[in-house]
Amino acid sequence: MYKFEDDSFMLHTDLYQINMTKTYFEKGIHNKKTIFDLYFRQMPFDNGYAVFAGLERMIDYLQNLHFSNSDIAYLETLGYEEEFLAYLKTIRFTGTMRSVLEGDTVFNNEPLVQIEAGLAEAQLIETALLNIVNFQTLIATKASRIRQLVPNDNLMEFGTRRAHEFDAALWGARASIIGGFNGTSNVRAAKLFGIKPSGTHAHAMIQAFGNDYDAFKAYADTHSDCVFLVDTFDTIKSGIPTAIKVAKEYKDKINFVGIRIDSGDIAYLTKQARKMLDEAGFHDAQIIVSNDLDEVTILSLLSQGAKVDGWGIGTKLITAFDHPALGAVYKLAAIEGDNGEWLNRIKISGNIEKVTTPGKKNLYRIINKDTGMSEGDYITVYDEKIDTSEPLLMFHPVHTMKKKLVKNFEAVELLHDIFVDGELVYESPSVLEMQKNCEENLNHMWEETKRFLNPQEYPVDLSSKLWNIKNDLVETLSNQVLE
Amino acid sequence: MYKFEDDSFMLHTDLYQINMTKTYFEKGIHNKKTIFDLYFRQMPFDNGYAVFAGLERMIDYLQNLHFSNSDIAYLETLGYEEEFLAYLKTIRFTGTMRSVLEGDTVFNNEPLVQIEAGLAEAQLIETALLNIVNFQTLIATKASRIRQLVPNDNLMEFGTRRAHEFDAALWGARASIIGGFNGTSNVRAAKLFGIKPSGTHAHAMIQAFGNDYDAFKAYADTHSDCVFLVDTFDTIKSGIPTAIKVAKEYKDKINFVGIRIDSGDIAYLTKQARKMLDEAGFHDAQIIVSNDLDEVTILSLLSQGAKVDGWGIGTKLITAFDHPALGAVYKLAAIEGDNGEWLNRIKISGNIEKVTTPGKKNLYRIINKDTGMSEGDYITVYDEKIDTSEPLLMFHPVHTMKKKLVKNFEAVELLHDIFVDGELVYESPSVLEMQKNCEENLNHMWEETKRFLNPQEYPVDLSSKLWNIKNDLVETLSNQVLE
Repeated sequence: MYKFEDDSFMLHTDLYQINMTKTYFEKGIHNKKTIFDLYFRQMPFDNGYAVFAGLERMIDYLQNLHFSNSDIAYLETLGYEEEFLAYLKTIRFTGTMRSVLEGDTVFNNEPLVQIEAGLAEAQLIETALLNIVNFQTLIATKASRIRQLVPNDNLMEFGTRRAHEFDAALWGARASIIGGFNGTSNVRAAKLFGIKPSGTHAHAMIQAFGNDYDAFKAYADTHSDCVFLVDTFDTIKSGIPTAIKVAKEYKDKINFVGIRIDSGDIAYLTKQARKMLDEAGFHDAQIIVSNDLDEVTILSLLSQGAKVDGWGIGTKLITAFDHPALGAVYKLAAIEGDNGEWLNRIKISGNIEKVTTPGKKNLYRIINKDTGMSEGDYITVYDEKIDTSEPLLMFHPVHTMKKKLVKNFEAVELLHDIFVDGELVYESPSVLEMQKNCEENLNHMWEETKRFLNPQEYPVDLSSKLWNIKNDLVETLSNQVLE
Repeated sequence: MYKFEDDSFMLHTDLYQINMTKTYFEKGIHNKKTIFDLYFRQMPFDNGYAVFAGLERMIDYLQNLHFSNSDIAYLETLGYEEEFLAYLKTIRFTGTMRSVLEGDTVFNNEPLVQIEAGLAEAQLIETALLNIVNFQTLIATKASRIRQLVPNDNLMEFGTRRAHEFDAALWGARASIIGGFNGTSNVRAAKLFGIKPSGTHAHAMIQAFGNDYDAFKAYADTHSDCVFLVDTFDTIKSGIPTAIKVAKEYKDKINFVGIRIDSGDIAYLTKQARKMLDEAGFHDAQIIVSNDLDEVTILSLLSQGAKVDGWGIGTKLITAFDHPALGAVYKLAAIEGDNGEWLNRIKISGNIEKVTTPGKKNLYRIINKDTGMSEGDYITVYDEKIDTSEPLLMFHPVHTMKKKLVKNFEAVELLHDIFVDGELVYESPSVLEMQKNCEENLNHMWEETKRFLNPQEYPVDLSSKLWNIKNDLVETLSNQVLE
């Protein structure tokens, strides 16, 4: 059997992290202080913004970080020596973590999480942190995209059965709420995260009773809130008329919330359904639809005048179907020198946009006080001060001719202390508060950034000081290779 | 915090399953015996076959099925009544489960898992079973597609950081092995499932030491098997020559396995690398590549004469990037009548291919004894006997004119007893044995079924008896709707 009593998430990492740790340990550099940045290079879904999620899970992971006895015993079978294993046993997360918050709107090429820790510690946690942020941020962003299209409708996450295993269903449901969904069908997610569970019945119940009428009546006998699924046999001829019939028969004995349609021509059927419900006097009865919906089908349905009050979104949300991976990376930005000073580190690439930004940094959102809107994000050297009494020069880090002077602004720090020297100093808010944080973040974003297709690129700029440091380091290293 | 001491997977289900269970319980039909079939309708990736995976996880889930105290307490907050909650507390899996085995090649519209259990029990487990099979089968199939392209190369699963959270990384690694991969970078998966972990070092190690030479030497000082990552600064000018230099310096002190290239023009770089390694006398040094590879890039690289010995496949495998969801469904096929007889159940759809196949069934693979190859799969009524001494008429269930007579065949039963009346009667083999089972299954498949693009449709046929039952039921129900 695949279970160990003391199984831990410490081995939820790539083998190379352990092999590098061995090298660091045996070369005596495992405790050298380092800075690693976690960020992504490309906007998910080509969206104008992403919604950060995953912090609470990372905190839990880091708090419990340790090699269990069975982890060590397993590594021993791979041939690692006793001294190294004894060292691994001592590992806990003792570093400092700074991070943007869940629900924050974030952008490519800015540090979302900054780890300041010993080289070995920082290295060993890379894989799990990326795994968490990549997935949860992807789903929160997808959910937010959908929310922008239907600001006032009821949005429910229905994807558990198509999710990539249990964790994806659970954390994906949570991320959907952060991104703006109202509820989830996943009961465990609802229990664990205090969010609203949603769902009434499926086709199987109709099949079990053999026909719509008996099934709806049985449901009405046993529940006060009733949403009837009307497409098991024939939506127009059987499902909707039967739902109306039962609603009339039961009158005030039930709360006839409405109907759900899960197949067929949703545009046509919802318009018919609305007409039939209205004619029967059920003007408040909602029409809920589901069936492989995503941004494009929603827009298409809206453009056809479909009458929809609630949307159950499954597969396309929970798998981020049209682009199922966010490519966040985790890169060494600085390492402690022999005299305790920071040595900046960079990774060069033929592609200038892939060159990392070196050193310990800070991240600000530049909010224009006149408009209340964000002018962009601004990355500085860690201890650099922004003088808000002077106009700020913002310029594109690659296409440096794109520049602007910003006046009358405030610079809001985006990275918050989460752990300081291994001690947790942050308490996560509720998931609904994260959702609210996301809404507030979006209030500072222009419509051009938020639109579904071809959004404006949001500025993520470097301070002149940081830009020069980066440029000089690229120059030096390029020259070394040319020699 | 989101944790409960006694959290269980019982609530890892959709809320409507619990609401339907309430109706069943209060209407007194919760213990009526039912048959549910789990199957998918469309081949993943338009592949000619799928590779089944997920059974061991389903077994574990079903063995531990129960509502914990905190589950019950949570449901109470949602307003469910005491009597119903008391009933839920008693629920365990007491049914019979039959299933195809992990590594089996399977096809659309055939029952992969058959649950025979009380209505409530069978209903409550739907979501989790689908969640497990959908993901694991998807990844095993993707891995097998890749394996078919490079039958003899080393294939490593490297996707953890891009997987959809922890479970997807873990079970996806396992599914990759079932589908034919040699190893995984995920150490926990290797530990839990007895598979081979794989990996040496990353760019961060080079950055930590500041240059290729110091980094490679440090690694060689601390490891016997060495694969050097050569693309941190400049693959041709720095990485490969430095790897060769270190390999020469260390000679027999290390096992110079080879190099890894993770960026750049893989076709060009691997050809150059092969030349340089050969000229230096390292004919056995392997070239391992990684960087967003999938079936198409692998084929393209092979067509360009790229020199590759090993492939690290990440994002595109672990997320099933080009089609990240398998749409397996779980449909009621029969329910116990008032006198204990089976009543067949069907779900009709405007689309004839979506109509379910009613009743308790058996599934056979028809192997031609002359060729050893499979003629197709054959679904019968449960107690129907196949007379192998007579030619078997096989015909397409929708396009019934497509038919053939099969002679000299054997009919291999594909559904195995896993649980009988709640008792586990099956023991899972090792993951490597599942991989072997997959290879053996593929040995019975024609090349035309296995090819990467536009495969032949594999026959999944119904017996005449079953086809007639289905047809009659459709007829009856359609007439009811017309009335």
